[in-house]
Amino acid sequence: LSEDELVAAIAQLVGTGARVKLGIGDDAAAWQPSRSARSVITTDALIEDVHFSRAWMSFRDIGARSMASNLSDIAAMGARPVLATVALGVPPGVSQEALLECYRGMLDVARMQKAEIAGGDLTRSPQLVISITVVGEVRASHLKQRGGAIPGDVLAVTGPLGASRAGLMQARGDVALDSDLAAEALRAFRTPVARCEQGRFLGASRHVHAKMDCSDGLSTDLTRLVRASRVGACVDNVPVAASAAAAAAQLATDPAHFALAGGEDYELLVAVAARAYEHLSTRFAARFGAPLLRVGLVEADDRLLMVNQGAKVPLHPSGWEHFT
Amino acid sequence: LSEDELVAAIAQLVGTGARVKLGIGDDAAAWQPSRSARSVITTDALIEDVHFSRAWMSFRDIGARSMASNLSDIAAMGARPVLATVALGVPPGVSQEALLECYRGMLDVARMQKAEIAGGDLTRSPQLVISITVVGEVRASHLKQRGGAIPGDVLAVTGPLGASRAGLMQARGDVALDSDLAAEALRAFRTPVARCEQGRFLGASRHVHAKMDCSDGLSTDLTRLVRASRVGACVDNVPVAASAAAAAAQLATDPAHFALAGGEDYELLVAVAARAYEHLSTRFAARFGAPLLRVGLVEADDRLLMVNQGAKVPLHPSGWEHFT
Repeated sequence: LSEDELVAAIAQLVGTGARVKLGIGDDAAAWQPSRSARSVITTDALIEDVHFSRAWMSFRDIGARSMASNLSDIAAMGARPVLATVALGVPPGVSQEALLECYRGMLDVARMQKAEIAGGDLTRSPQLVISITVVGEVRASHLKQRGGAIPGDVLAVTGPLGASRAGLMQARGDVALDSDLAAEALRAFRTPVARCEQGRFLGASRHVHAKMDCSDGLSTDLTRLVRASRVGACVDNVPVAASAAAAAAQLATDPAHFALAGGEDYELLVAVAARAYEHLSTRFAARFGAPLLRVGLVEADDRLLMVNQGAKVPLHPSGWEHFT
Repeated sequence: LSEDELVAAIAQLVGTGARVKLGIGDDAAAWQPSRSARSVITTDALIEDVHFSRAWMSFRDIGARSMASNLSDIAAMGARPVLATVALGVPPGVSQEALLECYRGMLDVARMQKAEIAGGDLTRSPQLVISITVVGEVRASHLKQRGGAIPGDVLAVTGPLGASRAGLMQARGDVALDSDLAAEALRAFRTPVARCEQGRFLGASRHVHAKMDCSDGLSTDLTRLVRASRVGACVDNVPVAASAAAAAAQLATDPAHFALAGGEDYELLVAVAARAYEHLSTRFAARFGAPLLRVGLVEADDRLLMVNQGAKVPLHPSGWEHFT
């Protein structure tokens, strides 16, 4: 197929939605932004053998994971995703069907959050490159940044961490988990879910002072949150996913390491006013089936510490650094 | 430098502007869209040794060219660019200074069109990958698509074509042009200018029925325009840049081929109501210093033809196919 024919096949797969006035096939896509909202935009490029390997997941999973990673940044802003554009670099030997499977994976995830794929770009590339941009919208008062945490705030995450790293190890054969735990881990690794609804719920609370996604490992992301907020924190609880705990047991390593350094978990990390925390967590549980998970407390002193066997020790960013 | 330190250096280089409320450094960037306008979005990924080579241009030129290529798609929609996001995949051995030079090149071009760089992503990559997304805004009535051409319309471009290909040949040493022509060609190849003002001017005319950018070679882009419009066309004039004509003379090839198949010229291609064409072209010349350049006529019959030595012969898309 020629490029134009392939674009036509993708356009047919993607279809058209309500918000996008002009979709795939012109020089640019067009949409009508909400009159009252702020718009937000995020871009993430995923590169073969840096962020994923075709050996460990299907093309559909690669697409799903790439879209989820971008939607997670939109979730962190408390925004509703509106549309995505997709630039794909495609190596020789990747079939048209594989490419469409990748799009199906992206659509699975985008449609779950009512986002449309509005356009993009196809090009040759030595490696598979997936660069996704997502635009979302949020009421200005609901947009929460990283830099708003204040001393005394409770730090919490929307779910346990480390399952994605356990899934990578299961996929690579580094561990052999029991079937339920293996399924949890592989799902977290291959088809993670962005916490968009949770992000909007938390963004709507005036007691949430700071919010970001926790995709590079808790230690790295927490370092970013406290630096942006010009505060410190003490971590007194590291919520570890059951599959990560089981993987750590098999490897005889510290399960907390999976959560602190694993990354790609796509939960949200928030700083919440202490007096409102219990009530917010209860409302969160009523809405989403599980409470917020406490991680620690924001402190005035700008050090990042962790309670380890009763002693406070420095916590350094040990998670995923994209660039080093 | 760590990723976070490098991001801080980029954020300082980029600065902050008026429209972006939250720029580089959070999970996503935020801006306030215009209340009355449509928003448009375009994404293009440029990949080392597919779209450019470090052997033929500086990092600053690579950045400038990548940004111009995206702004050209915004120009094609008649829109005003607002912001860009940049995802960079950086191979080992590229210095921090080289990376900042690439950003400076992008900023040179973005600032010329009053667009801000609002955010992005940095990652390792085996090849240099530059994926840029640009958001723009346009009044709904000024947004012109590819598919609006009607029989009888005059087809025209905003400037002569082929200089970029001549520049590539000059950079590779395939030709040795005289200094003024060499400078024209290398400028077109390394630091092309997106026709954003021209795009807005033409989009504002109700006599312009279709508009797109002409970046993949006239034969390929014209094929797309007539297909989208469900019409045909006859090309009776191919406007060739002086440097392309000189390069063709050195190679003893047809100069028209540079314009038809060369690509990356970033002029705009329009279909204009015949009765309004002369007047529009005169106004265009008064504003931009040179008239529109006639290419041919839109015809009802869906064939794409070209007048060659007095005979009408079929014109096939022979320009840049990104994917094959």
